[in-house]
Amino acid sequence: MRDVSIGLVHYPVLDGRREIVTTAVTNLDVHDLARSARTYGCRRYFVVHPIEAQRQLVGRIVDHWTHGSSAKRIPDRKEALSIVETVPSLEATYAAMGGRDAIEVWITAARDLDRRRTLAEARAELAQDGKPVLILFGTGWGLAASVVDAADAILAPVRGPTSYNHLSVRAACAIVLDRLLAPEA
Amino acid sequence: MRDVSIGLVHYPVLDGRREIVTTAVTNLDVHDLARSARTYGCRRYFVVHPIEAQRQLVGRIVDHWTHGSSAKRIPDRKEALSIVETVPSLEATYAAMGGRDAIEVWITAARDLDRRRTLAEARAELAQDGKPVLILFGTGWGLAASVVDAADAILAPVRGPTSYNHLSVRAACAIVLDRLLAPEA
Repeated sequence: MRDVSIGLVHYPVLDGRREIVTTAVTNLDVHDLARSARTYGCRRYFVVHPIEAQRQLVGRIVDHWTHGSSAKRIPDRKEALSIVETVPSLEATYAAMGGRDAIEVWITAARDLDRRRTLAEARAELAQDGKPVLILFGTGWGLAASVVDAADAILAPVRGPTSYNHLSVRAACAIVLDRLLAPEA
Repeated sequence: MRDVSIGLVHYPVLDGRREIVTTAVTNLDVHDLARSARTYGCRRYFVVHPIEAQRQLVGRIVDHWTHGSSAKRIPDRKEALSIVETVPSLEATYAAMGGRDAIEVWITAARDLDRRRTLAEARAELAQDGKPVLILFGTGWGLAASVVDAADAILAPVRGPTSYNHLSVRAACAIVLDRLLAPEA
């Protein structure tokens, strides 16, 4: 079984016109992805943001729930948020995990892209031994091409029975982790 | 294939001391559950709230994204939010679907409860013909006992490989709909 960590990327990501932007932190992204990551046994959750004030905001959210009065009131939230780390860049994320060569970077994308791996194939790979895996999720309209190009694997997008494919990143992350890491039924 | 709709219940739900309370509307619950419902082909999404001002708030959120400038900017959000309806009670929800006897009410609960149906069993049932199904999700610490007792089925909780089971309602709804309604891989 391989170690799995996740990262939520705020830069470089795309906006609605496919231009590269930096997105703002969403409070519930911090909570929801931490809770999903903790549920599915992910080791670390990196919030990737280049702006120091935004990283400090994440730090304050995490501190409120891990040390503040809310940590006493809702201890299970403390348990989830304690896995959150803030980092200024993808390079810093890789460095925190021992370097880019020490890990595999998998990305998810709602857009149609080549070099696909189905979620079933990815699940089977995680069950084997291998390098720790960092799964990156993009905010905004998705990860920039530079991130996609540098990934070791591109996971097939989650699709329902309709042609609509605009899940929130909170929903998409939850479903991907469930497909990859849920115990056999 | 049966029709599936979802409902997000703000009353009667439990708080951390297992007392019955009314919870406040969370903006991203409106968005995320609508987007997940639309992705998985759910027919309707009921936001159940007894307080008129809170229903009006939901109405304003929906209106902003279905008629405001944001409807032009992000049309896929319009498509999702247009399935949102506000109702003052569960009784009003049942009435909107043709009456309690015309539907089956399924609930989800993170707590351990009797009368379980696994998600695989529930998925198989949805593939058959039958009454429309309304799946209810609770806010706060989950649905009150009166709702649980009156349900036709209680879906087994989503579990990861850890003992931690505190997914957000946004994540839990996404995973449940994926398990029940995703196309066969």
